[in-house]
Amino acid sequence: MHRTKLTIAEDVLDANDTIARANREDFDRHAVRVVNLMSAPGAGKTSLLERSLGGLEGVRPGVLVGDVQGTLDAERLSALHIPVTQLNTDPGFGGECHLDANMVRSAIASVPLEEIDLLVVENVGNLVCPAEFRIGEDARAMVCSVTEGEDKPLKYPLMFRSCELVVINKVDLLAHLDFDLGKLLANLEAVNPAAETILASARSGEGTERLAGWLAGVGEREFAGAR
Amino acid sequence: MHRTKLTIAEDVLDANDTIARANREDFDRHAVRVVNLMSAPGAGKTSLLERSLGGLEGVRPGVLVGDVQGTLDAERLSALHIPVTQLNTDPGFGGECHLDANMVRSAIASVPLEEIDLLVVENVGNLVCPAEFRIGEDARAMVCSVTEGEDKPLKYPLMFRSCELVVINKVDLLAHLDFDLGKLLANLEAVNPAAETILASARSGEGTERLAGWLAGVGEREFAGAR
Repeated sequence: MHRTKLTIAEDVLDANDTIARANREDFDRHAVRVVNLMSAPGAGKTSLLERSLGGLEGVRPGVLVGDVQGTLDAERLSALHIPVTQLNTDPGFGGECHLDANMVRSAIASVPLEEIDLLVVENVGNLVCPAEFRIGEDARAMVCSVTEGEDKPLKYPLMFRSCELVVINKVDLLAHLDFDLGKLLANLEAVNPAAETILASARSGEGTERLAGWLAGVGEREFAGAR
Repeated sequence: MHRTKLTIAEDVLDANDTIARANREDFDRHAVRVVNLMSAPGAGKTSLLERSLGGLEGVRPGVLVGDVQGTLDAERLSALHIPVTQLNTDPGFGGECHLDANMVRSAIASVPLEEIDLLVVENVGNLVCPAEFRIGEDARAMVCSVTEGEDKPLKYPLMFRSCELVVINKVDLLAHLDFDLGKLLANLEAVNPAAETILASARSGEGTERLAGWLAGVGEREFAGAR
């Protein structure tokens, strides 16, 4: 029984990788770089994008927003006057809690690839399944809020290990928390020593310029295993 | 294709409900009440249990802790000198991000049901899939942290709708956040007007006595649709 489950898992992930490569070809044809942005619910993905995507020099951004239901984040990002596409995962079973390559594929037709240089895919808020499915991205970034505690890299290692960038958000709250930043960084180092980190606050703006620079530079860097 | 997926989903949930009923019978045989406790990662489930489970009058609690990997939460709760059982979801595909009835069933043999009156099942940190799988519980409770923003009930309606109790945690941080508690409560009211709410802070202790009282009283209340 257990072996059957694992075989199905491998088949599902193989099929996903095939579709992810097709997405990748579409993105390459339009010279669009893609970042898969992940986090737990409420860590601040949308707020950080609101503060960062306005400041990309020479790079035209767009966002594909994944949510179980609703268009709240897409509406917020539309205020930036950039192309924003909503993708709701509600109808599919097993797909509700993450984006996979096929869901992104179904949405690509609605993304004006010829008008953008960078597509940020804001994944569903979840620290488990989104890490398992490549969508054709160049790079993966995640947001981890200091309010979530220091133990998250150890409890969700696949997510933290799969990202090139970890944005540590809400640092404006550090003075009001029993939170040991050194411990978080040590836990992150234990699961992903290669990860770049940015300390940020979407509220104060700290770190959002560095995030903008990182996003703008995605096309110029090569990430191990990103493709 | 879409219809096939939905049929599979129904089959999976039917099979889950059958096993949940078997769990329920085991719990009933030992007169153990069960609470399924859910939240996003880092919302404070374990911290709230640390503050609440010591104060249950006349009720012997135990905890079944679900995590993708590791035993961090189980170790913290063991300091309460109550039976704590760790359940890791890492080996299964599709099961990593939540507990289902079968996973709980596999762990029941390790839970000393004859020594407890209340079993709190601390689910995997995730606002999507845990809500879809009943595990044989009497009642469902969730923790929502004020740091996650006011929009969560609208973005994860199934989770908020499926719970009898919503603990709004980390209220000690309200003074430092741009957070409108009235808006969160209105959003909760929109998806689940029947939910009971407790304002709490695992840090200051606010609300943890009320939570203890709610947990102790689970056996005395009847919840609609809980079985």
